[in-house]
Amino acid sequence: MAPRTEAVTITGPRADRARRVADVLRQQIHAGAYAGGLPSESELAAEFFVSRNSIREALTALKNEGLIERGPKIGTHVAQRKYDHGLDALLGLKETFKNLGEVRNEVRAAMPVAAPPSVASRLRLQPGESAIFIERLRYLGNLPLSLDVTYLAPDVGAEILHQPLETNDLFALIEQVSGQRLGSAALALEAISADAHSAATLQVADGAALLMLERLTSLDDGRPVDLEYIRIRGDRITMRGNMFRSKE
Amino acid sequence: MAPRTEAVTITGPRADRARRVADVLRQQIHAGAYAGGLPSESELAAEFFVSRNSIREALTALKNEGLIERGPKIGTHVAQRKYDHGLDALLGLKETFKNLGEVRNEVRAAMPVAAPPSVASRLRLQPGESAIFIERLRYLGNLPLSLDVTYLAPDVGAEILHQPLETNDLFALIEQVSGQRLGSAALALEAISADAHSAATLQVADGAALLMLERLTSLDDGRPVDLEYIRIRGDRITMRGNMFRSKE
Repeated sequence: MAPRTEAVTITGPRADRARRVADVLRQQIHAGAYAGGLPSESELAAEFFVSRNSIREALTALKNEGLIERGPKIGTHVAQRKYDHGLDALLGLKETFKNLGEVRNEVRAAMPVAAPPSVASRLRLQPGESAIFIERLRYLGNLPLSLDVTYLAPDVGAEILHQPLETNDLFALIEQVSGQRLGSAALALEAISADAHSAATLQVADGAALLMLERLTSLDDGRPVDLEYIRIRGDRITMRGNMFRSKE
Repeated sequence: MAPRTEAVTITGPRADRARRVADVLRQQIHAGAYAGGLPSESELAAEFFVSRNSIREALTALKNEGLIERGPKIGTHVAQRKYDHGLDALLGLKETFKNLGEVRNEVRAAMPVAAPPSVASRLRLQPGESAIFIERLRYLGNLPLSLDVTYLAPDVGAEILHQPLETNDLFALIEQVSGQRLGSAALALEAISADAHSAATLQVADGAALLMLERLTSLDDGRPVDLEYIRIRGDRITMRGNMFRSKE
């Protein structure tokens, strides 16, 4: 494609323009720019140098994501602020959201289990050794944030079974019962569609986009003690962090 | 819930058991454990201490994610390996996948544009200054990986318009034309469902889960020059990194 030298408004299919507008608006909404409601379609059209039809299509996409609400009388409003969870430091949900509201855990299971071999291997368990299994549905306010499935090393986990799981981050409990700070975690982050049962549990539509986080957390001495599989509602959490270019 | 002291197999609704199995299998598949095909249902049932019905439900979930293929004659096979993209160091796709195959960019747009105010503000543009707009559909092999919408600072971007965009990472081109290394990037990572047009462009089903990455990248001197909105196919990329607990 031959480069052009004068600035132009972006052309091409309306769907492309709508997507570009939606992406910029999404981040502005996350940044809190539109707490009092979004500008009118014609104001947005002027701001983005596109037609009102493109703006309307962008707003429909954001409405479908559950990010905004629209109505003929009420205008366009932010439906639900998303919360930021950090990629730069290892923090639990309660630590992260301490100024935003109460994190509450519905404990769906908490018991010793025979660990599948690959789980046992990640936690460096001896043959035949049990893991402690904990499953929690985590709420901020009245809405679920995530469904967390956890396998803990048995020594740490057995003590944690006696702690108040409903009101504490596992990270804090692990540090409390082990007498050590956590060290580091290896994480894998994916986008998946919610299966019907997970969707119902998280109170989202069947097939809704979820962040799937697998995270293996080690104590400060390097021993892995906490293997988690966490389904995070895509409409409630943004993961944020900073990255650095390695020096040549 | 009263803690139990003896190890038990995990009970509860079959859908819960299936999800727990699926999560462990998913990571094993990513790790390359089943290159020759997955074990039989009864072998997996023994490994995970659950019924074959639970295994079947777990495999159906992974099939729905596009991760495995199943058939009465062929057994269960990995449909498509996912690729790891790093959260620990700032790398372009071509740098990341240099040993896995050719990264090719279909350039959908490349031109100066009047930037929306919020984009101009992130890139610290002067009033009336244009940004350089580039949209690329990025392939590894024959399948799209991501759809990348980019706004570049005008001085860096104008020179990049004359470079071979089809075969290079923007990161490499920015360093080449600026004569500086990149410094850092601020990123926001979300899970969203693909709108119809983005889905068709990325060759996934309407509503498929995508990783949505917004990333503002600065030169080594701290000046932000590259604002990107990247839709990544959820079924092709896993983001991986390490996190550390901050010291009290």
